[in-house]
Amino acid sequence: MAEWLLSEAEGYDFLKKYDVPVPEYRIVKSADDAADSAAEIGFPVVMKIVSPQIIHKSDAGGVIVGVSSAEEASRAYDKIISNISSANPDAEIEGVIVEEMAESGVELIIGGKTDPSFGKTITFGIGGTLVEFLKDVSLRILPLTEEEVRKMVREINSYKLISGYRGSTPKDEDGLIKIIMNVCRAFEETEDLKEFDINPLRLYEKGACAVDTAFIFSDEHNGSQAEQELVPVEYFNPESIAVIGASESPGKMGYAVMHKLSSFPGKLYPVNPNRDRIMCFKTYPSILDVEGNVDMAVITVPSRLVPGVMDECGKKGVKIAVVITAGFKEMNEEGRKLEEKMVAIAKRHGTRIVGPNCLGLISPHKGYDTTYVQRSPTPGNIAFLSQSGAIVNAVVDWSLTHDVGFSSVVSVGNQSDLTFLDYLHWAESDENTDAIIMYIEEINNGREFMKRVSEVAKVKPVVAIKSGSSARGRAAAASHTGSLAGSYEVYMEAFREAGVLSVTNLEDAFLAAEFLSHHKHYPLGRRAVVVTNAGGFAVLSTDYAERYGIEIVDLPQNVIDEMNTFLPEFWNKGNPVDLLGDADGERFARTFNVLAKHDDLWDICVVIGFPNLVLTSERFAKQIMQLSDDTDKRIVSVLLGGAEMTGGREILRENKVPPFEELETAFRVVGRTLQSKFRAKGQGLF
Amino acid sequence: MAEWLLSEAEGYDFLKKYDVPVPEYRIVKSADDAADSAAEIGFPVVMKIVSPQIIHKSDAGGVIVGVSSAEEASRAYDKIISNISSANPDAEIEGVIVEEMAESGVELIIGGKTDPSFGKTITFGIGGTLVEFLKDVSLRILPLTEEEVRKMVREINSYKLISGYRGSTPKDEDGLIKIIMNVCRAFEETEDLKEFDINPLRLYEKGACAVDTAFIFSDEHNGSQAEQELVPVEYFNPESIAVIGASESPGKMGYAVMHKLSSFPGKLYPVNPNRDRIMCFKTYPSILDVEGNVDMAVITVPSRLVPGVMDECGKKGVKIAVVITAGFKEMNEEGRKLEEKMVAIAKRHGTRIVGPNCLGLISPHKGYDTTYVQRSPTPGNIAFLSQSGAIVNAVVDWSLTHDVGFSSVVSVGNQSDLTFLDYLHWAESDENTDAIIMYIEEINNGREFMKRVSEVAKVKPVVAIKSGSSARGRAAAASHTGSLAGSYEVYMEAFREAGVLSVTNLEDAFLAAEFLSHHKHYPLGRRAVVVTNAGGFAVLSTDYAERYGIEIVDLPQNVIDEMNTFLPEFWNKGNPVDLLGDADGERFARTFNVLAKHDDLWDICVVIGFPNLVLTSERFAKQIMQLSDDTDKRIVSVLLGGAEMTGGREILRENKVPPFEELETAFRVVGRTLQSKFRAKGQGLF
Repeated sequence: MAEWLLSEAEGYDFLKKYDVPVPEYRIVKSADDAADSAAEIGFPVVMKIVSPQIIHKSDAGGVIVGVSSAEEASRAYDKIISNISSANPDAEIEGVIVEEMAESGVELIIGGKTDPSFGKTITFGIGGTLVEFLKDVSLRILPLTEEEVRKMVREINSYKLISGYRGSTPKDEDGLIKIIMNVCRAFEETEDLKEFDINPLRLYEKGACAVDTAFIFSDEHNGSQAEQELVPVEYFNPESIAVIGASESPGKMGYAVMHKLSSFPGKLYPVNPNRDRIMCFKTYPSILDVEGNVDMAVITVPSRLVPGVMDECGKKGVKIAVVITAGFKEMNEEGRKLEEKMVAIAKRHGTRIVGPNCLGLISPHKGYDTTYVQRSPTPGNIAFLSQSGAIVNAVVDWSLTHDVGFSSVVSVGNQSDLTFLDYLHWAESDENTDAIIMYIEEINNGREFMKRVSEVAKVKPVVAIKSGSSARGRAAAASHTGSLAGSYEVYMEAFREAGVLSVTNLEDAFLAAEFLSHHKHYPLGRRAVVVTNAGGFAVLSTDYAERYGIEIVDLPQNVIDEMNTFLPEFWNKGNPVDLLGDADGERFARTFNVLAKHDDLWDICVVIGFPNLVLTSERFAKQIMQLSDDTDKRIVSVLLGGAEMTGGREILRENKVPPFEELETAFRVVGRTLQSKFRAKGQGLF
Repeated sequence: MAEWLLSEAEGYDFLKKYDVPVPEYRIVKSADDAADSAAEIGFPVVMKIVSPQIIHKSDAGGVIVGVSSAEEASRAYDKIISNISSANPDAEIEGVIVEEMAESGVELIIGGKTDPSFGKTITFGIGGTLVEFLKDVSLRILPLTEEEVRKMVREINSYKLISGYRGSTPKDEDGLIKIIMNVCRAFEETEDLKEFDINPLRLYEKGACAVDTAFIFSDEHNGSQAEQELVPVEYFNPESIAVIGASESPGKMGYAVMHKLSSFPGKLYPVNPNRDRIMCFKTYPSILDVEGNVDMAVITVPSRLVPGVMDECGKKGVKIAVVITAGFKEMNEEGRKLEEKMVAIAKRHGTRIVGPNCLGLISPHKGYDTTYVQRSPTPGNIAFLSQSGAIVNAVVDWSLTHDVGFSSVVSVGNQSDLTFLDYLHWAESDENTDAIIMYIEEINNGREFMKRVSEVAKVKPVVAIKSGSSARGRAAAASHTGSLAGSYEVYMEAFREAGVLSVTNLEDAFLAAEFLSHHKHYPLGRRAVVVTNAGGFAVLSTDYAERYGIEIVDLPQNVIDEMNTFLPEFWNKGNPVDLLGDADGERFARTFNVLAKHDDLWDICVVIGFPNLVLTSERFAKQIMQLSDDTDKRIVSVLLGGAEMTGGREILRENKVPPFEELETAFRVVGRTLQSKFRAKGQGLF
């Protein structure tokens, strides 16, 4: 792989081709030349050394600014040459660049980077010397529409520097957008261009000027993976399963798997050359000895035996092999080769592979579980796809005490053949699945992933946790130009574009999935009404609402007047609507009636109740259900307390208005869902 | 109350007295004067209108900058006068100020504000026109030491603008600190000065200049409350309780309270003129008819009857009256007068008051509960003081299903007599209390509160939730100069100074209190080691650690070598230490041994386990206990999953190494505790 940089002059020329304004310049090779060229350009000028060996020009004394006469220019030339000769006697000096000195303006950065998963990306933000510590940037994956570019300009915190603020005139936003569009085009059209920084781009009331640039080219090409055919979803509904490496010794993987699969309603064939029967099932020395068809094989034999077993599976016509065994590419080079060998064999036979190095698949509705989790999960409506086996273990155990059920659980392992794309496809077409949760560490083919997941997310809510946000993890991947777009941010942007909801922990993931699996899906906007019988929680609600981007709207006088007809004299006459501690079911019902009638005023109604003597949680839950039935808007129920609220919580959960049990969590999770592009109304948060 | 502003010249004079550098200036009343004065000062100068009616000088055409000759100065004078005459013909023109034009520099703001609860506060940050949207400020409550001023300068995000960064020389930080100290002194010494802004203060490589100022004086004096004697703590241990307004009708407050108190081990006297017996207790027409002493009276009669009842309580020698009844100052002016009357009567008799408008007190260890929560909480080691009754209800119900017990629960109500100060004092001296949680909406006497709570926090961890962070809540309290220090930020700063740990929700409050109630209290620093059997959670740990200010340290080679002797070949040889999914108790034990031996390398050890077949949660918990016993450093246990982890969680909870059940929450809560001033080592987050 070869990598090369453009010189300053080459960078300017490159940008000029794409109509990006740059300073006028000349390359000069003598003091006289310098004087003449500076005069031609017009004073003042900046002069800088041109030498491939001098990266930090200022530090080496290679830059002189504010040169304001021909005579000064001539002196500056000599000074620069002598500075460089003493700083680095071996530097090849190609000359000195004499540049028009651009006026000062708002200093911006436009950066480009090639992400290993998602390809070319663009960063925009506050530039100049502030860039490093303001970190005020927006990011997009190419290609971009003009509308998206406008959004990315407007979403930086310091946008006022562009739009104008007290005592400052607006800058040329339209001109800026045109420049960014041109830069995007340049990046897309120039395959070898891998990374660049225009910093600063100075923006004026009219026009702009790219004052400093760095361009890195490379002939490395991202091996764009061949598009692979998705696995047919019927492969996930096997009628017969063989367990290769089945065992009767507790503690062995082959025992745990057999134990789980013993309740499989289809045909089960243990394979173990040393046994006749395992757990009452007739056992076969080889899969080839099984009389009937085998749709799925679960493989738990040691890794070195897997290629041979895979060949037998192929011969037997196995459609899908779940390779639990570890010791492949996750371990070392030898393992990587073993994995390649296994994949090649399977491919030859047309057998598809789950894993290796995974827990495999759980389909509670179809009654199979190839994993070694301690207890199988219950059937439900969530598909959970995880790149960590430990997380599958913890989540399944957690689900059993948290009323959470699954349509499928997948431990994706090394994704040697089947990838997230296949499992997403399965979840999309599975009628038992209402929402999908993914735990992702890394995605290889980001573009394909985005295409697929965008399609799925249109139909079913997709929630993702992406690990690897920390600098510790990213440090290794730091780029040459110190560009600000770390890979985690690219994932976040990819999720946003694809309509995937991103959360930071598993509990939020499940709460979000539960909340979104209601047939109303996403809230239509961020305008909220809060109704509660708890003054303290009303105050906290306004805090949390603001923190998570939910807008507590003002209620118009006519609505307040209507409520005045039945609420106690001293109610707070505002939003949050505090119905007071002695509010009974009737008071809630009448309030909800008024709100449902005026549901054009809001997008979300957050109902918060605490246990007390005048209102049972069951009655409370029924009122909430009624409100949810009376409006198309989303109702968020928050039932605070413990055992006293259990009855109400069950009613709400059965009716898919899942009750939150902690107030800040409710606002955080609902606030997150508002960031989705599937929200129909209102301003985006991004 | 009268309020007045200083003119620009008065502001400069005021600052000059305190050695704060300001531009040289003259007030002129004619064009000739202007020319002469400008020449004396030296060009260029700035000229501005001086008129009490013209607030926005620039908008009215009252400012001309860059005046560079005597002739220009003369013309500028006429221009300003004519602009103002047409903009506002009625404006009183006191003259034109001719000022030295300060060089440009780093633009900073020093603001002062008088907080209604905590008194005079100082804000420092990035100023100029950026102030409004960068919102990069630090805040302190006066008085301040030089060390604190230095900290407040260094904690702003843009501190590099002062300390210097690539291509920029360091600015005069010591000079700046001297100026801030002088400004603090000026603010403290000038009682009438209520609020001010110096914006911008331009900071140079050497020296600074206060270019624009606003000073607001007022003769309003904060009625500094007389220091009141704390209630004797023995008042909270009554031997006899009267319930005035006791009732046998379910649904009535007097019923609920009687019901709760019927199990009180001391003497219980229901008072109700219409009954002889209530719930088998002899009932009295008036408290005065009770034969024995009455230590505590719980009052539930309608508000208009309370003053009369209070008088009877006083005559009876009641030490403490718990007034559950609402309808006092929280309702209206009439209620406020009623409350004052009640307080005056009680004061005359020396009776102390809890409430009114509250749920009162719960002391599970002493066996009384004056509230109407549905079920009383269990005895435990947490004191919970709440300014919201609804929150008491919800928290108590929640506690019953979450293994949380209380030493006391207080619903403080209107704090007409006893305040948070008294309850803090109780909790401090109560040997059953290991940690204190407060839910606070507002504190009246902030200075007294800080003094008291600082003392308590030295002995027992104090955790607080302060509501009212939202702009919606603060809008009403917006100040004249639009100063950036909202009251919520002042509370946060007061908490920090007093050593109170601030959290944003109740669940975090309980987790933090539980974590800190261990005898080791606060972690000694932010250096952490993570040990887990779950690869996926290891990755998430590094993300969360960075997010919440916990530092994952590098393990030195000798420690890794030691671990190599017993860990499987392919362990990750780093921190987080991933012991792999098949790690048994022995593998954890040996790892913990090595870490305990090298506990000089870390301050926190986060141990994360998930349910699996090779390690029971009980065994896991015992290993964690052993590690905690083997070191003085804090151990954070995270047991992920559901029922499979219950056994281990119980063991850990009994031994006060409370297990977290969600990973991000664990890092968030522990990260919060690192912000405490009681942490002994390392850099503060603030």
